[in-house]
Amino acid sequence: MASLGTRDESFSFREFNLIHRIIDQLGAAAAQDIVVPPGDDAAFWATSSPGNLIVASVDAMTAGVHWLEGSEPTMTSSDVGWRAVAASVSDIAAMGATPQMLLISLTISEFTSSDFVDGLVQGISDACLFHEVKVAGGDIVKGSANGISVTVIGEVEHYADKRILRRDSAEVGDIVVVTGRLGVSAAGLSLIKSAGEIEQSMEVLMRRHRRPEARVVVGRKALQAGARCAIDISDGFLQDLGHIANASRVDIEVICDDIPLEAAAVAFFGRSEALDLGLGGGEDYELALIFAEELFKDIEQG
Amino acid sequence: MASLGTRDESFSFREFNLIHRIIDQLGAAAAQDIVVPPGDDAAFWATSSPGNLIVASVDAMTAGVHWLEGSEPTMTSSDVGWRAVAASVSDIAAMGATPQMLLISLTISEFTSSDFVDGLVQGISDACLFHEVKVAGGDIVKGSANGISVTVIGEVEHYADKRILRRDSAEVGDIVVVTGRLGVSAAGLSLIKSAGEIEQSMEVLMRRHRRPEARVVVGRKALQAGARCAIDISDGFLQDLGHIANASRVDIEVICDDIPLEAAAVAFFGRSEALDLGLGGGEDYELALIFAEELFKDIEQG
Repeated sequence: MASLGTRDESFSFREFNLIHRIIDQLGAAAAQDIVVPPGDDAAFWATSSPGNLIVASVDAMTAGVHWLEGSEPTMTSSDVGWRAVAASVSDIAAMGATPQMLLISLTISEFTSSDFVDGLVQGISDACLFHEVKVAGGDIVKGSANGISVTVIGEVEHYADKRILRRDSAEVGDIVVVTGRLGVSAAGLSLIKSAGEIEQSMEVLMRRHRRPEARVVVGRKALQAGARCAIDISDGFLQDLGHIANASRVDIEVICDDIPLEAAAVAFFGRSEALDLGLGGGEDYELALIFAEELFKDIEQG
Repeated sequence: MASLGTRDESFSFREFNLIHRIIDQLGAAAAQDIVVPPGDDAAFWATSSPGNLIVASVDAMTAGVHWLEGSEPTMTSSDVGWRAVAASVSDIAAMGATPQMLLISLTISEFTSSDFVDGLVQGISDACLFHEVKVAGGDIVKGSANGISVTVIGEVEHYADKRILRRDSAEVGDIVVVTGRLGVSAAGLSLIKSAGEIEQSMEVLMRRHRRPEARVVVGRKALQAGARCAIDISDGFLQDLGHIANASRVDIEVICDDIPLEAAAVAFFGRSEALDLGLGGGEDYELALIFAEELFKDIEQG
């Protein structure tokens, strides 16, 4: 796609053929309607309105750390592709901006099957359609373990006051609101690793670990309604609130009884452990939005 | 920086401390003058002129494939950082566009020393200053081997006719012009691997393998002078000309006597082997520019 990195002939895929196959497989998720579609040195496009700000972030996942392969895998390669896209898009959601284009860097081990790569691309494609983003380019290199790094580029309207959702804009008296329920991904991973018989009512937990959904619409609504401060709480709720507190020079009070937990997690782990996962589990890809209480109704109703 | 991916407590670096150290070490190479500097969920900036096109590409390198570590390393970590930036920027140069911002995804093995990371960041910083780009964000994750993926984002003036240097714009009768000398990186790598005593006159070859310089100014000049077709020949001169020929539906005649070779490579390897390296060695990060002969003087003089 945008650039082609592998020159090692022993690579088990023929890279150029693989890239064409990937572009075909991406289908509607490949950005064909831009100035230079995949296949040149780089991808080009115009912002949707001249003068909009550009926003960009990158998020990486590696086998053995962010997911397990082998005899007891924590997710399929299709899940890996979905999750890598969602994790990256979530950082843009946390700014109140609109994600648009992805550049995807794949590291593929020589022991990896083409089925794995097909699944990965399928998951990327599905997550692109869900999150309304497209793949503008990428690179594939050989490595000792599988890995994926997703750069997401988007934009936000260029207001004169440069309004976006920042970490350093919390003010004394603001309230903290979180999207979704917390600790669900960590509860799901714990269930997956337990490898026991899992009741169907618990599948929501595992699914949320494997197929998180970034909160793009909520982030944009919050910005439009006047919010100025938010963070993606994928590092864990307390840790990420700490980043807000440090950047904004405020103290933040967390009322544990108010933390939204998933009923299935409370049922399986008990309230105390479910709460621990909610406060520190991480990888939920939810947003913490911090704003003056009077904005709450506007944001909730969009 | 833009997003923080490591939650594994056994990671030998404290990620948040490491990121602050990296931002400090990048110094002038960290994009502080943008709307949101490193440290938030994502980086934001405005194009230098409203309505310019955005350009983006990604390029990855992994230990054991693109460089060797261990007892006989092919380059220092500082070289790795430099080369990853230059390789990525070269794709933007090949479009005639101006690179501006980098997002850097690092995969670091738990056996990696902090000296390695310091060197890597130093090389990134040096290459940023040389190529006039800045680091807007990044991610660091643990993995089984060291790797670096660099996304470069830039812009080009938005002409009504959407002029850029593409692969599919070569025309019958055009000439092919290359920047620099070919096969130098491959010759350098061969010398490095030979591990023998190397004369000082050969050091230019090894340096070009480790510290390539992307041809941003030439690409931009060629576009301004009216060229429409170019490619980064980092996959090897013949292979990349093949991409031009396929995309543009033309045949390209290569006159071997006209291939520019480095005197040191001819002296060490002999003309025949130096020519083979020039045609197929790859990783020179030079440009092949394809245009009507009458444009040659304009492009050469800028």
